[in-house]
Amino acid sequence: MTRAGLLENIRSRRSYLCVGLDTDLEKLPFGLSRDAEGILAFHQSIIEATAPFCVAYKPNLAFFEAMGPEGWRVFEETLKMIPSTHLVIADAKRGDIGNTSERYARAFFTRYNCDALTIAPYMGSDSVKPFLGHQGKWAVMLVLTSNPGADDFEQLLLANGKRLYEEVADKAMEWGSPDELMFVVGATRVELLKALRARCEPYFFLIPGVGAQGGDLVEVSRAALNSECGILVNASRSILYASSSDDFAQAAAREAEAMQQQMALLLAEKGII
Amino acid sequence: MTRAGLLENIRSRRSYLCVGLDTDLEKLPFGLSRDAEGILAFHQSIIEATAPFCVAYKPNLAFFEAMGPEGWRVFEETLKMIPSTHLVIADAKRGDIGNTSERYARAFFTRYNCDALTIAPYMGSDSVKPFLGHQGKWAVMLVLTSNPGADDFEQLLLANGKRLYEEVADKAMEWGSPDELMFVVGATRVELLKALRARCEPYFFLIPGVGAQGGDLVEVSRAALNSECGILVNASRSILYASSSDDFAQAAAREAEAMQQQMALLLAEKGII
Repeated sequence: MTRAGLLENIRSRRSYLCVGLDTDLEKLPFGLSRDAEGILAFHQSIIEATAPFCVAYKPNLAFFEAMGPEGWRVFEETLKMIPSTHLVIADAKRGDIGNTSERYARAFFTRYNCDALTIAPYMGSDSVKPFLGHQGKWAVMLVLTSNPGADDFEQLLLANGKRLYEEVADKAMEWGSPDELMFVVGATRVELLKALRARCEPYFFLIPGVGAQGGDLVEVSRAALNSECGILVNASRSILYASSSDDFAQAAAREAEAMQQQMALLLAEKGII
Repeated sequence: MTRAGLLENIRSRRSYLCVGLDTDLEKLPFGLSRDAEGILAFHQSIIEATAPFCVAYKPNLAFFEAMGPEGWRVFEETLKMIPSTHLVIADAKRGDIGNTSERYARAFFTRYNCDALTIAPYMGSDSVKPFLGHQGKWAVMLVLTSNPGADDFEQLLLANGKRLYEEVADKAMEWGSPDELMFVVGATRVELLKALRARCEPYFFLIPGVGAQGGDLVEVSRAALNSECGILVNASRSILYASSSDDFAQAAAREAEAMQQQMALLLAEKGII
C-alpha cells in the first residue's frame, strides 16, 4: 500500500488505529477451542468486528512462531482474512547482514505479501537497506520503544550530543524516504515523541503503548500528528481481550469504535478531515 | 547443552567450529531438487560429512522463513538430523518487549528445543532477560558484528567514553552469566576482538566472518581464545558450497576438517588440549 493510499484510508475511515494481533492461546475467550482453529475463529471475529474502525493490523510474529510450523499456517490464514483496504504490518523486528535481511524481505514482502515489516537497527545500513525500495512496501524501524529497557541503549547520550535513538532516526532518514520508511516510537514518552515529530516531520510513526502500557491517546496524538496525519496508533490487548466471554467481538468493536471516534475528533481538530 | 558439556565437546573433538546452515535453493549442488526435499537431502549430507569436525550448527532462520510455512517444517526436520552432541544455535536475531521475547524464547528453546538463539540488544534489558535463566540454554547477543553497517551504530562513541558495543557488552554482563550468555563478535575487526576478549574474559564469543567475509582463522583465534577456549568460529558458505557438483559432501568435509586441524593446533598452542 502506497503512502497516498494509506492517507486516503485514514481520511475516509476517520481513523489511524492499528489493531495488534498478539493472540494468546490462554487468553482466548470462553467457547473457543485452545488450538489453531480457535485462534483462526478468534481472528475472523476480531477482524470483522474492528475493520470499519481501523486502517491497519499488526500481527505479532512471536505469538505465531511459538506454535511451531502450524503457527505459520495460522499466520497465512489470518492474512487472508484482512481486507486489502487495510495495511498489514508484520511485527517481527527482523534485521541481519545484507544477504540475510534480503531473505527476510523476501519472506514478508513477497512470500506473505505483507505491506510492512518492523525492523531492528543495531547492525546498521546494510541490515536495513534490503527492506527499502520495494514499491508499496514499508520498513518500520525501531527508534524509541515503549518498554522500560529503552533506557539501557536507545536513550544513551552520544559524544556528538545526540541520544542514540536520535542518531538512529537521523541516519535512517538518509537511507529511506517517507514513502518507504516509518519509525516505531512508543507512546509512553510524550515529550520525546513531540521532539521526534519535529525532527522527522514527514515520516509516519507507528505508536505502540497506548492502553495496556499506559500511553494516553489524546496526549500522544496531539504530540505526534503531522499535517497529513503521520501516525498509526496501535492497540492490542485492550481490544482483543475487551471481553473474555462470548460477546468478545462486540466488545472489541466497541473498544475500537471508541478509539476511532476520539481519533476522528483529533483529525478534525488538526484540520485533516 | 551446559557450558561444561560444550567445553568437553570442544576438547574431545579438538574443534571449535560452528557450521552455519544458510542454505540457498539457488546454490544447491547439481543433482539435488530445488525444493524442500532437495534442501533436506543437502542438510543430511552436509551434517553427516561435517559432524566429526565441528561442535555446533547454526541454522539461519531467514533462509527457512523465506520458504513460507514449509520452511519451518524443513527447519524442524533439519534439527532432527543434528546429533545431540552438537550445540544448535538458531540464528534469528530476535528481541522485543518482555511478553513478546518470552514467546520467542518459548518458540526456540521449548518448541524447537534449540540450545541457543541469537538476539538483538537495541530494546534493552526487558527484551533480553526472557532469554536468560533457561537451564542449558544460551542467549547469543549481538555486540560487534562483521558487516560494514557495524560502523553506523555499534561503533558510535558515547558521552561516557565507551563505544556503544562496549556499553552493550558491559550491561549484558550485568544481566547474564557466562553459563547462559554468549556474544556475537565479528571476525573482521581483530584488534577490537582482542580488546573485547579482555573486557569479557569468561564469556563465549560466536565469531562469524571467517572465510567468505574475509576474517583469518589463525589471527582471529589468537586474538579471542581464552584459557578454556571461549570461542565458536562459524563458517557457512565456504563449507556448504565448497563444491557445486556431486562431491559436495566430501568437499564440505575436507573444508571442515582443514579448519578443525588448524583449530587443534591453536588449542594445543594455548595449552587447552
